[in-house]
Amino acid sequence: MGQPLDDAALDTIFRTARTANHYLDKPVGEDLLHAVWDLMKWGPTSANQLPARIVWCVSDAAKARLAECASGTNGPKIMAAPVTAIIGMDENFHEHLPELFPHVDAKSWFDGNRELRAASAFRNSSLQGAYFIIAARALGLDVGPMSGFDGGAVDKAFFADQPGVSTNFIATLGFGDPASVHDRLPRPPFERFNRIA
Amino acid sequence: MGQPLDDAALDTIFRTARTANHYLDKPVGEDLLHAVWDLMKWGPTSANQLPARIVWCVSDAAKARLAECASGTNGPKIMAAPVTAIIGMDENFHEHLPELFPHVDAKSWFDGNRELRAASAFRNSSLQGAYFIIAARALGLDVGPMSGFDGGAVDKAFFADQPGVSTNFIATLGFGDPASVHDRLPRPPFERFNRIA
Repeated sequence: MGQPLDDAALDTIFRTARTANHYLDKPVGEDLLHAVWDLMKWGPTSANQLPARIVWCVSDAAKARLAECASGTNGPKIMAAPVTAIIGMDENFHEHLPELFPHVDAKSWFDGNRELRAASAFRNSSLQGAYFIIAARALGLDVGPMSGFDGGAVDKAFFADQPGVSTNFIATLGFGDPASVHDRLPRPPFERFNRIA
Repeated sequence: MGQPLDDAALDTIFRTARTANHYLDKPVGEDLLHAVWDLMKWGPTSANQLPARIVWCVSDAAKARLAECASGTNGPKIMAAPVTAIIGMDENFHEHLPELFPHVDAKSWFDGNRELRAASAFRNSSLQGAYFIIAARALGLDVGPMSGFDGGAVDKAFFADQPGVSTNFIATLGFGDPASVHDRLPRPPFERFNRIA
């Protein structure tokens, strides 16, 4: 129902956007983190579950705690980035559904079914993780998503006070240094991974 | 590194975009399905895994097969929509990594570890599902994502010839009828699900 994006906008969010490995020495204010949330929150999740719980690490202390849980070259990247976001997921998201999905008793679909809640939190917080990436790019920021970390250690360091919340993935955030971008990896044509039925 | 989006573009992909329940009688050509893939394929996945496997149901026969697996009001929605996409995920995505991530032996990280592959396929195909939603909107299309279906039945009907592929979620696609949109569901402020550390 919206107006299609122009070429420059398609480039910004998809076609020429790249994963950043280092960032320019340009601060990212808290207002910009709020702006990312105020865009990404509109992305659809099943029954408006919104299971993502985000910790935005901006202090040196928080970055150091997170870097200790990261593997390989990810630790130094976290320390050097203006912000690293931890995209967590709450398997007790259903407690919020009476408010977030008020017209039916959606909480009862999930009560007592932890396996369903865990799968639903994983799927929908991953959708929200992608909305986070696109929203950041749409605002002129760049991201560096990472899977190389000890999830249990991150949970203990950042979500110990929130039972039911665990870490999905993490991502550095800032104004990317174009010189830090790797060679582009291949993307196969439609026929490889798509079928029309 | 890209140019920030203007207000109209932010509205199209996030702020005023809405889940469609019915679509206008306006065809969606195969060229447009290719265009969605040619945008969404650029969205980042861990080690360029690209685990999503998409079946675009456009024929009445395919829609009927899928509608039989859907619950509640989803069957009639599938029959009435111009297209319904099945977002599948391949837990054997690692077989493609020598080509998709050629500079290191990423396949060996996943060989023999089915649990890691299943989690990775689920996370990254969900990211791709979100890229699919945003890419479709960016092209002026609308989507209606759904979780209400019998996953095992969809797998059997559409992925029987692809061992390792299972269904993540499904989504109708077309030019949405603004009259079919439900009331907007609440989105909580930053403080509710975010923390700055």
